[in-house]
Amino acid sequence: MSTRGGGESVLARAVRILEAFTQDEPALSVSEIARRSGLHVATASRLVAELVAHGLLVRDERRLVRVGVRLWELASRASPALTLRERAMPFLEGVHDVVGHHVQLAVREGEEVLFVERLSAPGSVVNYTRIAGRLPLHASSSGLVLLAHAPAELRERLLDGRPLRAYTRHTPAASPLLRAQLAAVRRDGYAHCPGFVHEDALGIAAPVRDRTGEVVAALGVVVPNDASARAVVPVVRTAARGVSRALGAEAVGKRVRAGTTRGGDGGATLPLAQ
Amino acid sequence: MSTRGGGESVLARAVRILEAFTQDEPALSVSEIARRSGLHVATASRLVAELVAHGLLVRDERRLVRVGVRLWELASRASPALTLRERAMPFLEGVHDVVGHHVQLAVREGEEVLFVERLSAPGSVVNYTRIAGRLPLHASSSGLVLLAHAPAELRERLLDGRPLRAYTRHTPAASPLLRAQLAAVRRDGYAHCPGFVHEDALGIAAPVRDRTGEVVAALGVVVPNDASARAVVPVVRTAARGVSRALGAEAVGKRVRAGTTRGGDGGATLPLAQ
Repeated sequence: MSTRGGGESVLARAVRILEAFTQDEPALSVSEIARRSGLHVATASRLVAELVAHGLLVRDERRLVRVGVRLWELASRASPALTLRERAMPFLEGVHDVVGHHVQLAVREGEEVLFVERLSAPGSVVNYTRIAGRLPLHASSSGLVLLAHAPAELRERLLDGRPLRAYTRHTPAASPLLRAQLAAVRRDGYAHCPGFVHEDALGIAAPVRDRTGEVVAALGVVVPNDASARAVVPVVRTAARGVSRALGAEAVGKRVRAGTTRGGDGGATLPLAQ
Repeated sequence: MSTRGGGESVLARAVRILEAFTQDEPALSVSEIARRSGLHVATASRLVAELVAHGLLVRDERRLVRVGVRLWELASRASPALTLRERAMPFLEGVHDVVGHHVQLAVREGEEVLFVERLSAPGSVVNYTRIAGRLPLHASSSGLVLLAHAPAELRERLLDGRPLRAYTRHTPAASPLLRAQLAAVRRDGYAHCPGFVHEDALGIAAPVRDRTGEVVAALGVVVPNDASARAVVPVVRTAARGVSRALGAEAVGKRVRAGTTRGGDGGATLPLAQ
C-alpha cells in the first residue's frame, strides 16, 4: 500500500480516495479525503485534481469534492448489476404495488450483501438497507438466501470463524442457529427473518437464478414484524421466479419440476399453507 | 496521453480501459480492450489485472473482462445521480402507472443528455434512450429542457457551431429552429417533441429544480406520436414539480408564484388548454 511511483500504487491510491466517500458524507474536503485514505495531503490533492479532470470526481461551489456522474456512467453502462436490475424492475414494482414498505434486490459481494435496488414507500417499517449499501450475509433475509447458495468454503468460513454480529436477540449469530437457518432456506426456497436486523421489521427473500441455475441475486421485502407477513411469502417467491425466468432460467425450472430434487425453491406449488 | 510512468497517465489509461466497455459489449478480451483504449496489450493486461485485483473489473468463466459490481458500488453509494434518482422514483413510478410506455430522468453531462433512470413497459413505443446512455442535447425533449436552462455560453456554442445531427426531418437541427424550440421550452415550462428522435415517438419533458432554483434534471416521457400525447403534458409537469419539491425547491415555487416572472415553468396553472 505504501509503495510510491509504481502504476499499481497510483490505482490503489485512487481506489482509496473513492472509498472515502459514503452516502452520509458525499462531499469531502481534500484534507478529509487525505485523512480517510491515509494519503499525504499533497498526494491526495494531486490525485483528486486528476480525478476531477477526468470527471470521476467533481468540485462543488464550496470546493468540496464529490463523486462525479461520469464515474457512475462508466460503472453503470456495462454493469451486470444494472442489467440484473433492469430485468428485475417490473417484478420489483409489482411487489411494491401490492406489499408496499420496502422491496429490494441484492447480490453477494465477497462476505457481504450489496443492495443494488430498493423501492420504499413513505411511512414504511424501519429498514437499514440502502441502494449501494451493504449488510453482513448472516443477518438479513437477502443475505441468508445468498449465503445458503454461496460456495461451501465461504459458508464454512463464516460458520466456523469470527463472532458474528447480533443486531437483535433474534439474529442467528451463533453457528448452530445459522446452520439451521441456511438449511431451512435451501429446503423451503426462501428466507423468513422476523426481527433479525431490527425487532420491528421482518425480512422475506427468495433466490434469483440465471440461465445456468446459479443463484445470482436475492429478491426480498422488509415488512412489519407481525403475523400478516406470512402472506407475503408467495408474492416474493413468485417475483423471484419471474426475475429468474427473465434472466433465462426456464430450463432450470423444468429440470427441477421433473422431480430430480426435492424441495429447494424448485417446487411447483407455493407454500401458501406454511 | 502517451506519457509513461507518471501518476497521471496511469489513471488516464485506467479511464480509457473503463471507457472500452459499453452496454452492447459488456464483456471484452484483453486484446480487444487494448485495441479500443489504444494501449499496448502488455500495458492493458497489467492494468486490467490490477483493476481486477481491486474488484473494479472482473473476469468471467470465459476469461472475458467485465465491469465489476465494486466499481458500481463505489460510483453509486455517494453519487448525486443516485440521490436525485431516489427522490424522483416515487414520481416516476406514478407517471409510469398512468402513462405507461417510457418514463425517464436525465441530467446534463457536458454537451449531452445522460439518462439516469428509465422505466419502460412491454410493448412501448420505440425509444433510443438507456439508463447510463446518452443523447445529444438538441434532439430529445429532456435534452431541450436541459439545454434551455444550460449556461448561455454552452447554448451559443451549440447554436453557432458544428452541424447538429438530424434524426428525422422533425429534429430541430438548424439553429433558428432550435433557438425557437428553446424559447418555447422556457416560455411554456416543458418541451414537446413530436418525432424529433424517431417518427413514431413523441417526447415530453419538464425541468426538475433543486433548492436554489437551478435546473438539475429533466423528467420526461416517450409516448406514441399522436394527438393523445398532449394530455400527458400536465402529468409530466406535475411530476417534475413534485420531484423539485422533494429536492427542496419550495421557495422557488413561491417566489415565482408571487409574480416576479411571467411564464416559464413557474405558472401555478397547468397548460390543460394547450
